[in-house]
Order: sequence, then structure tokens, then C-alpha cells
Amino acid sequence: MTAEIVHPGFEPVREELMRMVEADPHYSAQFCAYADGVPVVDIWGGSEIDGESIQGVFSATKGISAISLALLLERGALDLEAPVTRYWPAFAQAGKADITVRVALSHQAGLIGIDDPLTFERLTDHDAFAGALAAQSPFWQPGAAHGYHALTIGTMIDELVRRIDGRSVADFYAQEIATPLGIDFFITTPDAQEDRVVDVLPAKTVTGTDAATEAIDDERSLMAVAFSGSGWDPFDPPLPNRRAVRAAGLAAVGGVGSARGLARAYAACVSEVDETSRILSPATVAEMSRLQTTGSDLVLGFPTRFAIVFQVPDERLAYGSWRAFGHDGAGGAIGVADPEYGLAYGYIPRRMSTPGGADPRGLALARTLRRCVEAGRR
Amino acid sequence: MTAEIVHPGFEPVREELMRMVEADPHYSAQFCAYADGVPVVDIWGGSEIDGESIQGVFSATKGISAISLALLLERGALDLEAPVTRYWPAFAQAGKADITVRVALSHQAGLIGIDDPLTFERLTDHDAFAGALAAQSPFWQPGAAHGYHALTIGTMIDELVRRIDGRSVADFYAQEIATPLGIDFFITTPDAQEDRVVDVLPAKTVTGTDAATEAIDDERSLMAVAFSGSGWDPFDPPLPNRRAVRAAGLAAVGGVGSARGLARAYAACVSEVDETSRILSPATVAEMSRLQTTGSDLVLGFPTRFAIVFQVPDERLAYGSWRAFGHDGAGGAIGVADPEYGLAYGYIPRRMSTPGGADPRGLALARTLRRCVEAGRR
Amino acid sequence: MTAEIVHPGFEPVREELMRMVEADPHYSAQFCAYADGVPVVDIWGGSEIDGESIQGVFSATKGISAISLALLLERGALDLEAPVTRYWPAFAQAGKADITVRVALSHQAGLIGIDDPLTFERLTDHDAFAGALAAQSPFWQPGAAHGYHALTIGTMIDELVRRIDGRSVADFYAQEIATPLGIDFFITTPDAQEDRVVDVLPAKTVTGTDAATEAIDDERSLMAVAFSGSGWDPFDPPLPNRRAVRAAGLAAVGGVGSARGLARAYAACVSEVDETSRILSPATVAEMSRLQTTGSDLVLGFPTRFAIVFQVPDERLAYGSWRAFGHDGAGGAIGVADPEYGLAYGYIPRRMSTPGGADPRGLALARTLRRCVEAGRR
Repeated sequence: MTAEIVHPGFEPVREELMRMVEADPHYSAQFCAYADGVPVVDIWGGSEIDGESIQGVFSATKGISAISLALLLERGALDLEAPVTRYWPAFAQAGKADITVRVALSHQAGLIGIDDPLTFERLTDHDAFAGALAAQSPFWQPGAAHGYHALTIGTMIDELVRRIDGRSVADFYAQEIATPLGIDFFITTPDAQEDRVVDVLPAKTVTGTDAATEAIDDERSLMAVAFSGSGWDPFDPPLPNRRAVRAAGLAAVGGVGSARGLARAYAACVSEVDETSRILSPATVAEMSRLQTTGSDLVLGFPTRFAIVFQVPDERLAYGSWRAFGHDGAGGAIGVADPEYGLAYGYIPRRMSTPGGADPRGLALARTLRRCVEAGRR
Repeated sequence: MTAEIVHPGFEPVREELMRMVEADPHYSAQFCAYADGVPVVDIWGGSEIDGESIQGVFSATKGISAISLALLLERGALDLEAPVTRYWPAFAQAGKADITVRVALSHQAGLIGIDDPLTFERLTDHDAFAGALAAQSPFWQPGAAHGYHALTIGTMIDELVRRIDGRSVADFYAQEIATPLGIDFFITTPDAQEDRVVDVLPAKTVTGTDAATEAIDDERSLMAVAFSGSGWDPFDPPLPNRRAVRAAGLAAVGGVGSARGLARAYAACVSEVDETSRILSPATVAEMSRLQTTGSDLVLGFPTRFAIVFQVPDERLAYGSWRAFGHDGAGGAIGVADPEYGLAYGYIPRRMSTPGGADPRGLALARTLRRCVEAGRR
Repeated sequence: MTAEIVHPGFEPVREELMRMVEADPHYSAQFCAYADGVPVVDIWGGSEIDGESIQGVFSATKGISAISLALLLERGALDLEAPVTRYWPAFAQAGKADITVRVALSHQAGLIGIDDPLTFERLTDHDAFAGALAAQSPFWQPGAAHGYHALTIGTMIDELVRRIDGRSVADFYAQEIATPLGIDFFITTPDAQEDRVVDVLPAKTVTGTDAATEAIDDERSLMAVAFSGSGWDPFDPPLPNRRAVRAAGLAAVGGVGSARGLARAYAACVSEVDETSRILSPATVAEMSRLQTTGSDLVLGFPTRFAIVFQVPDERLAYGSWRAFGHDGAGGAIGVADPEYGLAYGYIPRRMSTPGGADPRGLALARTLRRCVEAGRR
């Protein structure tokens, strides 16, 4: 059994989680934080979670996939200014020859779906999905706007990594990052980890004013294109509750892990962890986390801000300082690094929140965490 | 006399129109829809309109002019990536040499008016208006923002068609599209059609909180530049009520027709109509209807979304699926095609609505229309 | 002693100022306006100001610095399309080689601060601050968004002027513009003017919900980067109350003058003043005042619109016609030219307003001014 960690000065974070648990009998969550590469908080609370479980984090997976891309950037194998076709020639179809990696990876390419039905089989068959994306005509003028590429950005990341490295992003991540650093997070969940997996639980509000779900049903919108499948529903059952999803290596939404794993992966980007050098230089972190888009998101319908794959803070995603970067998931999970504070943190609630995306309770814990760091510096 | 059409399964559309007519004694309108190239609804209601009348539709004309441009694109005669000057050398004046057709036709060029007074004579004299536009300095940095080119986009369209084809857009449209397909809509109203024309009636709310009109009066704003004339008012009398306007071939605001004509023109873009092949390939439709701009409109002051000339759906203009494209007019008229549903529809209210633009009642009828299509597919 | 000026027809402006003074015992302000190059209003009111005093205007200084840049543009010495590095080679560091003067001067470069602490010594040491900026990595992708470069845009302006002309912008302005035209405004305050300087008074609301100040304290945001110093506060004491600031020639925030000076400087841009030719051609004015950015400001968090350095009107900054351009300051000061009305005006309140930026009372006086001009033309 792993023991909880609460370093001196970080007690307020644990106290806040305990208050949240007391206030809501349906609430359970893990929270873990590193300060300057050292785990200072590793806690969990609520009756439905413990310190050993791992679970699906939906789009928080994107952040881990982005870290893998960042390692290729660090090694000089990826050029953000290059056209995607330098690595993936078939991408040139349907007028996409000039789209740069930068545009493609910052939700500006307009490739939010495919014209053919996105069956579950195609979703979990990388080559089939990538082939359809390569042939796809953009849903808006590339570069003219941005909108959340909820599923497709994972396929684009994965294909880029495969073309550059030969391995899938799931394998690249596992072999180059997760295994050497001992990170408890998986893009493809190994069989040996399956008995640790707990299901993402559905949101408790059954009368539901889940804005995301309603918007998906509303007409045939860009949101529907980006989120809907043919014959399957991303939230019923929650996608990562399906073993076929966990096994597919889906770089956008298929990852499974613990808050501890999320925190450690982000910590390794910005700090030395356990005497292992940080995996990314400050210059690579700056390049990957630099804001690329702002304004109303064509898919989500509200303002979003993206760097290269990563989200950067805005009014909704109060991740920390202006340097913070990370990603949330529909279930409420959050993974973030914040070089300004020397912090990295992961948060996973057991139960989906309504409306989806970064659980405000996780953001509140992170805010308390920053206050603890500031107090310690005084 | 034309008979009404209500195909089985589309009765809810007629019922809704009848409820609207009963609820408002000042309301009269035509609504017509094609499904997969077949007219499934062709109805009218209210005491001030019938199935034979045609009337001015203000900016809904732009959609018809855009269809004409699309035919040139289909034929390879127009390149959206070319600078406007390839076709129209004089356009290079005042630093405009690099503006592409794409930018010019998506309301991004900043050419919303002319410095000299836009007299009625100049408005209706194509060469004079085009010459002034060619010489005009942009009202904002081209490409840096977008704003509704309420009048000038018609002159730009017309000049491009003239330079490419030799004919005016009104003649090109009449000879290449309207006459062969039997479309009851005219950019230049022929004398023989004049006895069918009914006046656009003014809005009923005489105390008026017409936002558009107020904004035009307010200071010397970009809205005033885009909408105001010198010595004439676009709404008093309504521009297309003037025979000189109807005769001038104004590609932005001069068109006259029936809802039946609007629906048929859009249907021909996306479906075979009466065993005549669709006039535009899916690739051309995609290119013309692809979103180019989003965000706050510098002229209108609220968010708008434009493709190439066409409007695409946003929260205000709930035209249908993400693939829908069309244009509304200040009087409330709407013309739309929606390839996702296989639909095209036209709507013309007799009386101007306040504050202008797509009449919410027309949008509601179109929504009901989509529900009927969906019900039929189940 | 200077006498007040109120030309016939402009009495309503003076009456409005008097009403404002009567309504608020803590209110004192200067207002001056030129119409077609002639001073038509030169007034002041309240117990804490007179017609002789000069005071700091914070960012309204930026407008005066922009006028200096415009004169270099007029003379062909500055090319907005050139990369900044043409003039300032060291600027190429950290991936900034391609940033154009246009992007850099319209708040799009993402250079809102420096990584090293911005001590007061560095703020007032041009070469040190410019060197740090040249080395600085952008805070967002250059050109992808805009945000207020509150302090740094002054250093960029100053360095460009120094590289092009050899003199600092303060000296260039003093020798080329202020002295020949007799403009009562100084980027560097001469010793001989020091006895005329009055302090900017703090805002009266001590309980304070000053949004700007709160946002600066909130986390480590882009606003904090743009506005905060290390060891000094921009508003406590107000920066230009410090003689070291007034002596430093800070092109962003260090200027000192009277409303009369602001009005005259802007008047000289658009009109012949005292039989001296206007200093800028209409083409230069158009180029400098053409809108370059719109949408939400990454630093301020609300929509802003910038031309080349100058602000252009939006809902908050109702400066006048679409052609108006100018700049406000945190203390409430405003300087504007409006070629459409033939107007230029300056406004300086003695006491800082909350939440800062153009004092609504100054905007109201300018609105009345425009109404007077319009009445006179009828």
C-alpha cells in the first residue's frame, strides 16, 4: 500500500480535500503534487477511491501525448514550422498540403472529424482513422479559426510520432518516458495493470443539464462532428471504461492512470525528479506551452486557449501562472505543470462532473497548493 | 395560380406557419423547401402575400450572387487564392495589391465603403462604384479582422464576374442559372416581372428600437460607413421598392423573387432538380461554404461567421447543420442550402422585421422542416 | 496667466465641465480641443487644477510617442512591413527574427515583459531594458493574439527611433515636434518645467474594487507580467509623480503635459496649426491609425483595438468617428485626433479614476464637443 504524503506546509491542501469529501457523499478523488521535483502532496479521499486505483482520464490523455511530442521536439526530430506533409505525405489530400504542424497541433486545422461514420472499429483502428483524416476535407478554412479536435488530434499526434519514430505514441511514451521514470500513467493500459483499473462513474445529476451532451444532440453541429461516434457514445459507457479503448493506445482519450502518474509526468517536464534530469529543456517547454489560439472555440462554443496540444490558462481553466500548461478531461481530471511555481499536479475524480471538463474542486485544490508554495517562500 | 405543396410528413411546417399567421395579424410570409431536389413544402400565409408575388429580399441577394460566383469556381474560371488584381488590376491602388479573392469575398478586406459620398446615382452605376472601390484605402488592415461589407461586396462580386466572364453577375445569373433552371428570382428584375412585384412593407413597430438604424445614426461609425448613403436611406423607402434599384442589378441588395425561387436556387447547388444535374460539385460547395471568419464583426458589432460571401450558422443564424450555408436580408428573408439534410429552403416575410436580418419565424419553420426530415428517416 | 478659450458654439462643453465639477468636490480637470487647427475650447475646472499646471498622463504618453514614429513613417525612414531586425538586429534572439514592425507596434509580438525582475533601475535605464527585451522569448506566439504591452511598447518605440534617427524618442519628439510647434507636452520633462508639475492624485475610493490592481495581484498572470515591477508599484506612488520617471524619457508612461499640449500635438497631425503645415499627410495618418487588432486582449482580459500603437474606438473608448485615434492613460487622461470631425482634443483629470483608463467624463466632454461641431455645420 502506498502511503499518503503531505509535506509540512501543505496541510491546507489535504484539509480542503477532506472538506470536499465531507460535503458530498458522492465525491471521491485523488490529488498529487510535485514541488521542484519532489512529491509534496499525494492524497485521496472519499469512499469510492484509494491510492492504488487507476482510471480513465479522457482528454487529460492529450497532455501526456503532448509530452511525448515534446520529447521529439527536444530531440530535434520534430519541426513545428514544417508542413504536416513533411512527415505524413498523404495528409496533402483535399487541399491540406500547406497546413503546418503548429496549426495542426493547435486545433486550427479544421479536421475535427471524418465524413464517413466514425464507428467504434474505426476509432480503435489507428491506420483506418488516420487514413480517413488524411483524405478529409477541412471543416473550416485551416488557420482561420480554432475548435477542439476532441478525438482527431490524438490520431494526428499518433501518426506524426509513428512517422518520425516508427513506434506508436503509446509505445514511445511507455518506453521513453513512463517506464524509465516510473510514471503511473498509461496511454495503452498493459494487461498487468488491468486489475487496478476502476470504472469512471457517471455523473450523479440524473435530471441532467449537461451542456456538452445537449449540444451534441443539438442539430448536426461542429460539436456533434467532433464528439459523436456512429454506434457508440463517448460517455455511455464512459469510453475508457471499455477495455478495447484502454488497449487501443488512443492518444486523445484512451489514457488510464493515477493522479500520482499525471503529476509525475508533468513534474518530469519542468523539474529534476528523483535525481533524473528533467526530460525537457526550458526552451522546449516554452515552445510547446506558448499560446497559439484564443477566442471562441468553433466546436465548444466558448473561449478556449491552446498551445501546442496543451491547454493554457483562461478564466475557466485557472491552472496557475501564465506559464502553466496542461490538459483536462471530460471526467474532471487535470494534469498541469507550472514552471513559475515549480509545481506539477494531477487530479482525478472518480465520478464524472457536470458539465464535463476540469472539475472546479480540482482547480480549487491547485489554488490552495499555490498558496502553500507562496507561503513557504515568504 | 400556383398550388400549395405540402408533402406527407411535412404538415408540421404548414401548421406552424398557420399558427404564426393567427398570432400576428400583421404577419404574412412565403416559405418553400426542397428535400433531395424535390419541392416538399411551398406555402404562404397571411393577408398580405400570396403564392405569386415576388419582392425585394435585400441581402439575401448576396447568396444568389454567391451561387453565380460558385459556378465560375466550378468551371475553373475563378481562383480563390489569386490576388483580386489578377482579374481586376485597378484594385491594386491604395496598398491593396496583395488582397486575395478569398479575403475580399469573406468580408476581411476592409473595403466597406468609399470616401466620396455614395449617392444613389453612384450606388446604381456599377462602373462608378467599382472605380471608387478600386481606388479606396481600406478601413482596417486587410485580413486583420472582418466586418460586413453590406453594399460593397456586391460591387466586388459583380466586377469579378464582369472581368472573368464579360457579363454582369445579373446577366450571368439570369442566363446561366435562373432561366435554364426556371428559378423565380432575379438580380435584375425584368420588365415582364414588374407587375408581380409587391413592396417590402415597413416594420410595424413605429416607436422603433431598431438597433440597426440607431447604430447607423450613432456617430460616424464603421456601421454608418457600410450602410449609409448620401441622400438616400436604405430602409426608407426600402431600397428594393425602388424600380431603379430593381433594374440596376445590384448583386448585394437588389434581388427580387419568391421564397420558391430562393429555395430552388439553393436546391440546384446541392441536389439534382427536375432531372437536371446539380450545378455545383460537392467540392465546390465545400470550398464556397467553408467558414473563413468568426468573432466580433467590426461593422455589425456582434459575432458573425462568413464563408465565401455566404453566411454559415452561428447562434443567431441557426440555419441547420454545420454544412448549411445561405444568406439573410434586412427584411427578414432567408435562403439556405443544407447538404447534411439534403435540404434547401427560402423564406420571405412581407413586412420588415425589427431589428432586421433573418426573421426568427423563418428560422423556426426551417427547424421544424429539419425535424420532419429526421422523422421521415427513422 | 493663460486665459480660457470657449469659441461661440462650444459653450455646451464648458457648461458640462462645470456641472461635473459641481457634482464632485474631488474632481478637477483640464480639457482642450482644436477644430480644424484652431483652439476652440481650452478650459479647466475644480479646485485642484488650473490652466498652467502639467502632470503625468501615464499611457497617454504612448500616443505622443506614436506621433513621433509617424513622423519617421512620413519621412520614409520607417517601414511597417520590415522585420524589426532591419533596424534592431539583436531583436532576432529567441525566435523573433520574423516579427514585423507592424506586429511589434500593434501589441501582437507577445513581448509584454522580461523574465528577469523589472527593477526600477532597469525600467529607467533604456539600454538595459531594451537589451532584455531583445533577448526575451515571447509570452505568446507572435501574431497569434494581442495583449497590451503596457511598458514594453515604449521601449520598442524608443529603440526603433534611436536606431533609425540616432536620438531617443524623447529628444526626437522635443526637437522635431514639440519645440517648433510649441506643444506643452514632454516625454522627458525639462528641469525648467519641473515647477509646473503637479502630482497625479490617487483615486478617492479607498475601499477600492480596482479591477486592474486586483488582477495584477491575482496569481502570476499576463497582466501581472505586463504591469508589475520588482520593488516598485506603478500606482503607489503614481509612476510619473517620481522625478526619476519624468527625467527618464519613458515613451510608454513617462510623459507630462497639459490637456492643451495633448490637443495641440494631435491637432498638428490632422490640421494646419497656426499657419504651420500639418506634420503628417493623410496617407500617413491612415496608415498609422488603421485598425490592426481586435478581440479579447490577453493582458487586460477585455476587448481592445489597436492601430499602430494608437488605440482606435471601441465600445469602451468612444473617441469619436471610425477615423479617430489616440491613447488614454491609467490616470484617466485622453489624447485624440478625429479627422472625420476635424477635431483634436486632450483631457487630463487631476485625480486618478477607478478602474483606470479613459475617464468617462472626458469621453462625455468629447461627445458634447462633436455635437457642437455638428450643430455648427448645419
